[in-house]
Amino acid sequence: MQTANQKITSFSNEKIKLIQKLKDKSSREEFGQFIIEGYREIKKSLLHPTIEFLGLYISPECFLGENENFLIREFLKRRVKVFEIKKAIFEKISYRDRPDGLLAVAKLLDFRFKPNQIPKGDLYLIIEGVEKPGNLGTILRTAEGGGVSSIFVTDPKIDLHNPNVIRSSTGTIFTLPIFLITLDEIKQFLNFNQIPIYGLSPEAKTFYFQRSFKKPVAFLFGSEQYGISSQGKILCNELLSIPMKGSADSLNLAMSVGIVVYDVLRQRIVNNSN
Amino acid sequence: MQTANQKITSFSNEKIKLIQKLKDKSSREEFGQFIIEGYREIKKSLLHPTIEFLGLYISPECFLGENENFLIREFLKRRVKVFEIKKAIFEKISYRDRPDGLLAVAKLLDFRFKPNQIPKGDLYLIIEGVEKPGNLGTILRTAEGGGVSSIFVTDPKIDLHNPNVIRSSTGTIFTLPIFLITLDEIKQFLNFNQIPIYGLSPEAKTFYFQRSFKKPVAFLFGSEQYGISSQGKILCNELLSIPMKGSADSLNLAMSVGIVVYDVLRQRIVNNSN
Repeated sequence: MQTANQKITSFSNEKIKLIQKLKDKSSREEFGQFIIEGYREIKKSLLHPTIEFLGLYISPECFLGENENFLIREFLKRRVKVFEIKKAIFEKISYRDRPDGLLAVAKLLDFRFKPNQIPKGDLYLIIEGVEKPGNLGTILRTAEGGGVSSIFVTDPKIDLHNPNVIRSSTGTIFTLPIFLITLDEIKQFLNFNQIPIYGLSPEAKTFYFQRSFKKPVAFLFGSEQYGISSQGKILCNELLSIPMKGSADSLNLAMSVGIVVYDVLRQRIVNNSN
Repeated sequence: MQTANQKITSFSNEKIKLIQKLKDKSSREEFGQFIIEGYREIKKSLLHPTIEFLGLYISPECFLGENENFLIREFLKRRVKVFEIKKAIFEKISYRDRPDGLLAVAKLLDFRFKPNQIPKGDLYLIIEGVEKPGNLGTILRTAEGGGVSSIFVTDPKIDLHNPNVIRSSTGTIFTLPIFLITLDEIKQFLNFNQIPIYGLSPEAKTFYFQRSFKKPVAFLFGSEQYGISSQGKILCNELLSIPMKGSADSLNLAMSVGIVVYDVLRQRIVNNSN
């Protein structure tokens, strides 16, 4: 099946050079574009309400599955150009050890918070000062699984379009509402909706599971290195901690988020079945 | 303070060359040695009951903290040779982006299971067919925090001495009892001690939190790609699943382990306080 609009056979092709540049945040900002690599991630990006694709790059020699043609057809239907490239070139532009022959380029998404844009929900996460792309991605993946309504990212030390965020989110960055937002805007939104904020902090004496989360609630998690900022703590109705046994002194940030989010889900499922 | 026994100033020093080789499993096996890098990891390795250190390599120009001398003194006390090396050389042998100037070499640990060696406990993890070093490391870190007694690793696709296992475990690989063991040996041990085994599998209709884990219990987690093997499933008294909302189709393996382990800890703490 011949699906591509055009074949690219040279490493020095301008589009190939641009894709390689998009590994860097500065180039992503300069060109206003970013990369989505991998079947699972691209499939979820198709669900994003406002995404504008600029091209799909395929290398059928690398395909691992049987559903690639479904994806390609969807791009052609949206009148996005599809470029077929040789395996050797694809491997060069890929961010992965074992590329699966699918890479999309899209315009940068606008994650900035705009009032009235936050969907109604009952479980909000506030992620403050996050430092590692992999952690933010894993948080997104786990948050979606755990039923989080929206994620507020405040003062991040990383770029949300970083390929490692997208990859470790397994594409949930495109399906979960996620907003770049200030602590003041968060406070305004949550106070207006009378939603309490619990901050996770190791010094707290009360454990997370000792509170009831059956009503709408928000959780604030601080950075890997420094925890919640002093301004962040002011926002919190209460600080809670995760119990720690043995010689372990802390959990990975994404793990802490997952444990708390899944206790909320547990409480709500158990409650509904009573 | 002059603490080192010897200074190494050349890239072509035999010990430096060996350390670089130890990145590879085949060299670790050939030489029977492995690397422990970083303050936190080395500090925990000192707690291992039978570890035999072969050398400590320090680069004071890279030190990030104030407690390095405590570690160095501990090695000198154990009559382990301490080598001081230049920053440029240390950066070359380091596995990290920002090395902290501490790297130990030790003889390979013997993780093989021997009968009567498993400490008495009330929470066991069985990790079958694990494929990613970072996952196993994060599982260890989280398991220690969650109060796991012992970890049984069966049919792993990775080497337990892989630097990424050690790093993502933050050194808990040295403090948590961990055994390389067959499914048959696990079955024998757990059956003898009348400890039920719950397997985590997405097709199960019962959620993990719908069972009581106040008594001693074991959990079996399958590989990232394939889940629990058919032989593994035969061992299980029951299969349980983790609820999944939204478009997310699965959780990261380490995340699944953390969520289940922390529900056990929650149940036991809540029970004790009643």
